[in-house]
Amino acid sequence: MDVAIVGASGYTGGELLRLLAFHKEANVVSITSRRFKGEKVYKVHPHLRKFYDLTFTEDVKDADVVFTALPHGTSMKVVPEFLERGMRVIDLSGDYRFEDLSIYEKYYKIKHTGLPNVKIVYGLTEIYREEIKKAQLISNPGCFPTGAILALYPLVKEGIIEENIIIDAKTGITGAGANPSERTHFPFVNEDIIAYNITTHRHKPEIEKELRKVNNKIKVSFVPHLSPINRGILTTIHGFLKEKIDNEELIEIYKKFYKNDIFIRIYKDIPKLSYVRGSNFCDIGGFGIDGKNLIVISAIDNLIKGASGQAIQNMNVMFGIDESEGLMNVPINP
Amino acid sequence: MDVAIVGASGYTGGELLRLLAFHKEANVVSITSRRFKGEKVYKVHPHLRKFYDLTFTEDVKDADVVFTALPHGTSMKVVPEFLERGMRVIDLSGDYRFEDLSIYEKYYKIKHTGLPNVKIVYGLTEIYREEIKKAQLISNPGCFPTGAILALYPLVKEGIIEENIIIDAKTGITGAGANPSERTHFPFVNEDIIAYNITTHRHKPEIEKELRKVNNKIKVSFVPHLSPINRGILTTIHGFLKEKIDNEELIEIYKKFYKNDIFIRIYKDIPKLSYVRGSNFCDIGGFGIDGKNLIVISAIDNLIKGASGQAIQNMNVMFGIDESEGLMNVPINP
Amino acid sequence: MDVAIVGASGYTGGELLRLLAFHKEANVVSITSRRFKGEKVYKVHPHLRKFYDLTFTEDVKDADVVFTALPHGTSMKVVPEFLERGMRVIDLSGDYRFEDLSIYEKYYKIKHTGLPNVKIVYGLTEIYREEIKKAQLISNPGCFPTGAILALYPLVKEGIIEENIIIDAKTGITGAGANPSERTHFPFVNEDIIAYNITTHRHKPEIEKELRKVNNKIKVSFVPHLSPINRGILTTIHGFLKEKIDNEELIEIYKKFYKNDIFIRIYKDIPKLSYVRGSNFCDIGGFGIDGKNLIVISAIDNLIKGASGQAIQNMNVMFGIDESEGLMNVPINP
Amino acid sequence: MDVAIVGASGYTGGELLRLLAFHKEANVVSITSRRFKGEKVYKVHPHLRKFYDLTFTEDVKDADVVFTALPHGTSMKVVPEFLERGMRVIDLSGDYRFEDLSIYEKYYKIKHTGLPNVKIVYGLTEIYREEIKKAQLISNPGCFPTGAILALYPLVKEGIIEENIIIDAKTGITGAGANPSERTHFPFVNEDIIAYNITTHRHKPEIEKELRKVNNKIKVSFVPHLSPINRGILTTIHGFLKEKIDNEELIEIYKKFYKNDIFIRIYKDIPKLSYVRGSNFCDIGGFGIDGKNLIVISAIDNLIKGASGQAIQNMNVMFGIDESEGLMNVPINP
Repeated sequence: MDVAIVGASGYTGGELLRLLAFHKEANVVSITSRRFKGEKVYKVHPHLRKFYDLTFTEDVKDADVVFTALPHGTSMKVVPEFLERGMRVIDLSGDYRFEDLSIYEKYYKIKHTGLPNVKIVYGLTEIYREEIKKAQLISNPGCFPTGAILALYPLVKEGIIEENIIIDAKTGITGAGANPSERTHFPFVNEDIIAYNITTHRHKPEIEKELRKVNNKIKVSFVPHLSPINRGILTTIHGFLKEKIDNEELIEIYKKFYKNDIFIRIYKDIPKLSYVRGSNFCDIGGFGIDGKNLIVISAIDNLIKGASGQAIQNMNVMFGIDESEGLMNVPINP
Repeated sequence: MDVAIVGASGYTGGELLRLLAFHKEANVVSITSRRFKGEKVYKVHPHLRKFYDLTFTEDVKDADVVFTALPHGTSMKVVPEFLERGMRVIDLSGDYRFEDLSIYEKYYKIKHTGLPNVKIVYGLTEIYREEIKKAQLISNPGCFPTGAILALYPLVKEGIIEENIIIDAKTGITGAGANPSERTHFPFVNEDIIAYNITTHRHKPEIEKELRKVNNKIKVSFVPHLSPINRGILTTIHGFLKEKIDNEELIEIYKKFYKNDIFIRIYKDIPKLSYVRGSNFCDIGGFGIDGKNLIVISAIDNLIKGASGQAIQNMNVMFGIDESEGLMNVPINP
Repeated sequence: MDVAIVGASGYTGGELLRLLAFHKEANVVSITSRRFKGEKVYKVHPHLRKFYDLTFTEDVKDADVVFTALPHGTSMKVVPEFLERGMRVIDLSGDYRFEDLSIYEKYYKIKHTGLPNVKIVYGLTEIYREEIKKAQLISNPGCFPTGAILALYPLVKEGIIEENIIIDAKTGITGAGANPSERTHFPFVNEDIIAYNITTHRHKPEIEKELRKVNNKIKVSFVPHLSPINRGILTTIHGFLKEKIDNEELIEIYKKFYKNDIFIRIYKDIPKLSYVRGSNFCDIGGFGIDGKNLIVISAIDNLIKGASGQAIQNMNVMFGIDESEGLMNVPINP
Repeated sequence: MDVAIVGASGYTGGELLRLLAFHKEANVVSITSRRFKGEKVYKVHPHLRKFYDLTFTEDVKDADVVFTALPHGTSMKVVPEFLERGMRVIDLSGDYRFEDLSIYEKYYKIKHTGLPNVKIVYGLTEIYREEIKKAQLISNPGCFPTGAILALYPLVKEGIIEENIIIDAKTGITGAGANPSERTHFPFVNEDIIAYNITTHRHKPEIEKELRKVNNKIKVSFVPHLSPINRGILTTIHGFLKEKIDNEELIEIYKKFYKNDIFIRIYKDIPKLSYVRGSNFCDIGGFGIDGKNLIVISAIDNLIKGASGQAIQNMNVMFGIDESEGLMNVPINP
């Protein structure tokens, strides 16, 4: 099975390559980068030396599936062409995450050129597995939404918590991409924890949109924080219980909900980023109850379950391959 | 004015020494440490070389004021004696923070030996300045409560927010003290963000107790997180507005409330730890409003405004010295 | 093939388990820990949840090979018994690294109980592959010696550099093990670079001993530094050229020397820890020449090529398995 | 005394402002920044809020002394004008560090416009105090040369070590300035130690030039490393002793050499960055001796003794003010 990666010089591109290196079915045939065309892959990703001998090109070769790991606003310019060429597309940008384009345009501050005439499936594998199987175009979820929605879905589905939900998330700096900026300048983020885009972050409407499909009264308050670490998102959910429930019952609900999901691990302890680092797992735990207050914690590797790992998980589902193929990396701890 | 520091080998002891080095009125005459008695101060605090030539002793010399920087449970064993010797005491442990000793015993899991027969004042300087002037025994606030209460007080006082308040706090590792433990082991905390003691942290009842003096219906949900940094506490307050209010009005309320408080800085931007690192400031900002949701962020240096700096601020108030004497360190950024 | 891991609760034990999870030939049948006996493996190594269901025991089951991941001084107490039971042993401690026990006793300050009556092979795979095949007892190299000797061997072998060699090495904190201590206390090492044990580190005689087998006049000056990172050793070699040589010639010598070694990557650029993190590679590069001065840089993951990865590499060689089986992890960058 | 700071928006500019906030003689009257002209100082340096109410301008007001904290190549365009206006200048760039402009042009790859017709004094205060008193133009030393030369000067002066000297230095990322770049991108430097510019760094000829004034046969090999910390330079000197000497004798030589230098602290232990962080100290220690090999370690805060602090120290000397005025900050540890 042939795979192309468009925009392969960034972190998610590098991570797709890393994870696909020993995938039994997928074969990367084409990697593109405008900036690095003509360069060997290991000039940009020196860790991949000895694993790939590919050269970056500007044009995309035909493939069974193409991953678009491009900046927001750029994907929409190239995806329609790939679809026309008959390739299935897994888009890692935010361009196809909203059916309501006015929300996209408000939060991304980019004029949208319109959705293609195919069914677009939101690639949260655990929730949309059936739709993903047949999809032509997958819109891979944002990193924060992945950690937050997976931790919240059973609660919302079962009607356990009130509609007003608070999400306090902490992310590593790879979430900001491979391009240097003031916000990623080492002395700016090191020795600091930085709240940003409070009330205005793009991932807030993405989380709300998904949860509202289950309960349209859901209201999310979302505060992301930059943390001086490379990888990982720790999501602290603060909710309010509608009725008394105990810790064990809650865990049972989660275990039942995710009983067929190999990449979800549920437990009573509090998840740590090091438990999932380098892997496609989403660990969910904590389950603190104090009167009406409920606290649930989830941990993911933002570049894997929050991006490239989930994209490959979706590819596996789309092509009838074992869902965990290429993804059973054991987490690296410490 | 003579100062003694009991338990001077830890971080708060070292920080008291650092801050008092050029205090115009205070003169450190006695530092104690059981473990390091007989050692020069710079064997334990090498950064203080050339600033002090003191030697750790076991006994405490007479002084006008004694800072007790001891573990919880140890202060209560020595403070009564210091009071009897006629010394005023500023205690940095949790031993005198609760009038209701049953709360102390529940959260600290230590049997309390009883409160001395003097008025104990909770040393949150901005709130209790008048009582502090006359106090014999100051119970210096915990680090998390300092950042949280200062950010919440105007909201609660003015009745702006609902009683159910969520506090999501992130602290540097010096908050755990100078003694190595699993939780402070470098590879355990590095590259991680660690939620801990959700629903059971000692600082939750301390925050509640103070806010309930203003509104006894206040209910706090408190989730602390260890962050891989040395110093600083970032407190993200998630509250619910009772009525519509805008950003500017809120800022005005805060500015008015703290108009005489040199160490409180109020602004619209989001505070960062680097804006206060190494200083006695508490910066409060953010003021995100999204419908009923309100987000307020505060930043302090946990060892200074959250411990030793505030202790000296209290000493200044107690002895009629300019409140900022010895404390006008400019923050170190980066 | 059955594998036992003695002392499986530490970092190297956890890393052996991680790397063996999908090894095609090896099957972990026994993990021991005195402290955690009776506990499930994921109580100590939560990242391994879903990969193993093993329980720590005190006794060691029979196995084809046993890895001893024990503190220095403890290995020598148990290894003889394992050998008697007919198991081949790969020891990760320093106990069997010196034929001359007086050196061991001087640098480890432990009385040695004596070497067993089998041939002990120093497990630097690239150098001793043939001997390893038949070995009963492998003494797995120290982390610093691995990075240093691999970078120096071709230079010493070819007689390119003078005998007085300077090694300035920087290590992550996992090198100090999983037990908390003052030296691993987060605020002690964070925001610092710490030279330690200058002239007295145990790995200095280990490096010298190996290089002197090639040239017995070699004299090493070794300065290790703790760095505020989890994993990795960057070794900066400062040598003096005997004769003029250029960069390209040097690279050719290295490439030729390591032409059959899959885990050695040679290049002109300067290796970074992120190029090898999470993998068994030793990258060697830099090759700066300034008159007589030569600078060579190597990078390894201290827990993998510097410990558990190399141990498995040795196991593979011992049992005639493909040398890279279980070890072709792509490095994680960033 | 009036002070102007040209290029006050960077780290060294911010640090000059921080250190001068309570200087008894100096009064900052003018801060310039092309990019931020019209902005209040705390828009760029939020930590300075409440300490300054200055506004960035493009033009420089008359002052007794002007600090030029500009990029290399920019200083030389403006310094002549300041000198003509009768202001004494302390330049923090590399533009005036070489009398031999061909070396400057080779290492900085910038065409030099020529030296002004005044005596230029290299501002290593401890070495050139007398010349500094009368200087019109001070060329403030580079950060690496400060740590290296101070550690080496007594050795070279007393003829204790051989001419071939190896300097292995580790710096925090603020040394790269406030502008984001690939090299300062958080995920690039975090969890890594990065050797760079081996054999070609600009500070190598600066160190050599100074040491050759004492012994013109000195040959330096210099390897700098980026470390994932904000502040500090740890310099590991590897030298060769000409004759046997012991630890105590060496310390005596250093103590005698620096007996009048308040900012130099000499001791047997190994200096750590945290012992000097936030201060103008240069700590020198270690003094490891192993046969002919000698190891000396120095620690400085690169932004203070390595830049702005030393610049103010020079200003104090130039204007007959107490050398430590404004600079007696106690180091911040941790």
